[in-house]
Amino acid sequence: MSESTVVVLGDTPPVRLDRLSGRARVLVSDADALPELLPAADVLLVWDFLSDAVRDAWPGAGPRPRWVHAASAGVDRLLFPELIESQTVLTNARGLFDQPIAEYVAGLVLAFAKDLPGTWELQRQRRWRHRETRRLAGTRAVVVGAGPIGRAIASTLGALGVRVELVGRSTREGIRGAHELNGLLPTADWVVCAAPLTPATRGMFDREAFARMAPSSYFINVGRGPLVSTQELRTALVSRRIAGAALDVFEEEPVPLDSRLWDTPGLLMSPHMSGDTIGWRDDLARQFQDNYDHWAAGEPLFNVVDKQLGYVPG
Amino acid sequence: MSESTVVVLGDTPPVRLDRLSGRARVLVSDADALPELLPAADVLLVWDFLSDAVRDAWPGAGPRPRWVHAASAGVDRLLFPELIESQTVLTNARGLFDQPIAEYVAGLVLAFAKDLPGTWELQRQRRWRHRETRRLAGTRAVVVGAGPIGRAIASTLGALGVRVELVGRSTREGIRGAHELNGLLPTADWVVCAAPLTPATRGMFDREAFARMAPSSYFINVGRGPLVSTQELRTALVSRRIAGAALDVFEEEPVPLDSRLWDTPGLLMSPHMSGDTIGWRDDLARQFQDNYDHWAAGEPLFNVVDKQLGYVPG
Repeated sequence: MSESTVVVLGDTPPVRLDRLSGRARVLVSDADALPELLPAADVLLVWDFLSDAVRDAWPGAGPRPRWVHAASAGVDRLLFPELIESQTVLTNARGLFDQPIAEYVAGLVLAFAKDLPGTWELQRQRRWRHRETRRLAGTRAVVVGAGPIGRAIASTLGALGVRVELVGRSTREGIRGAHELNGLLPTADWVVCAAPLTPATRGMFDREAFARMAPSSYFINVGRGPLVSTQELRTALVSRRIAGAALDVFEEEPVPLDSRLWDTPGLLMSPHMSGDTIGWRDDLARQFQDNYDHWAAGEPLFNVVDKQLGYVPG
Repeated sequence: MSESTVVVLGDTPPVRLDRLSGRARVLVSDADALPELLPAADVLLVWDFLSDAVRDAWPGAGPRPRWVHAASAGVDRLLFPELIESQTVLTNARGLFDQPIAEYVAGLVLAFAKDLPGTWELQRQRRWRHRETRRLAGTRAVVVGAGPIGRAIASTLGALGVRVELVGRSTREGIRGAHELNGLLPTADWVVCAAPLTPATRGMFDREAFARMAPSSYFINVGRGPLVSTQELRTALVSRRIAGAALDVFEEEPVPLDSRLWDTPGLLMSPHMSGDTIGWRDDLARQFQDNYDHWAAGEPLFNVVDKQLGYVPG
């Protein structure tokens, strides 16, 4: 195969693609330069996975990249009709974030169970106030999203003695179907959202869902912001309809300074970092380059997204 | 056996001992009344386990309780010479706190690994600042204290992929001896103290121990306050000799309002609550009453403390 042109969208800090040196022409682009560079690209590496620049720059009838790789598990920003309907192959970073996100969720669940935020607020106030906290073992979790991330969360919580129901699109062995979710919410102590963002899942956690949850229960979102109606979550928290929530993803990122979310009672906010352990960028670069080896050898790519479903099936 | 007299030291909120009704004369005492009531006691239930009242009230040559039960795992306040040398049997609450404390420690370790305190501080300041955090799986922990609590901590951290060394008094299968601790500290990411407080362990975590730990490592104490030289821990934190620490127990409890500990950088403080999950007082009362059934039947008590060692062996 002749030398391919790889366009990289967004590289702050710079992506290290040492293994492509001498094998590909690598062009780094920002959103502004992308319309000009994209027609020349054989491969597009989408490093800035929250950008709409690919959609905006997508060549109409012109030459298009044959392969687009997202340096993320979620590919929602790339699921626009022109790319879905094209012959372009879309791959993602499936596998890299499973264990880190599972650990992050376990940390949040334990922090809620043991009221660590309350403890640290009391420390700030120099107040010694003993409280009784929850035993985690024996509680119930519902994890929505039955991909590798959801399964890793279920496995980690299970290792801590939590009884977990895993909810996917359709019912299959060990997995409840989405239509069963409503029946599972009332008895869950923890509801964790790790679903892909697709037309079927957008806004799935809304007022109705929070109304089904127990007043003592907690909600955690590590998927994508628009899976949740943030305003309706805020209302559920302010009215103590549920006990608390943690959001790592938001409808708008970064969350604006004047957002009412920041001081919502019972809400813990983190800046889209649940999966980003030390060295994650190197891991992402290595995975892309592994897939590039397949590409260069004319072999099938791995982590190919089903563009109709919006994720890598199976 | 004729009706026994059970004296209960401290009962705020009141201890429920329903199963003793009609079988024992139960007298509730505070520290002031104890010298008067203790000579009449067959059994002493020490509900307020941090009080020195038993030592202060212990009858010299007079009649003494034949059985003292501590509603706690640690019995350090009861290990005074007159009780140690007496024929009085000492029992404790071994078993009740293992899983709750193990969960609490796992919560603290994950909170440190994922920098949850930093995230919540940034939220208070309405600052969106992405950071890379640690992957917990594959890190190393040293857990000091090889009793049921230490073993539960080791098991729970192990389930999260942490490689754990358990340190006890002497080397035996699966357990490192205390003399091996110094060699284990430099490579530990997490050092967890869950040892009983005895003359052999008092002050074991001092400047020298913290100097052996890695600058990126964290220290957690869920045992008893005097296991640690708090002042030397503070110095280690202020000088960034270690990365952080969490204390659930202190040399003086409650910690005084003017203590310099409260705002020590990198220190998380909780008010001696790591094992106290909802219903813990009922669990303690049930366990004491189970042992009382043995007592009333003339059978050997369980959870008998070796008063020389300072804990229940085996």
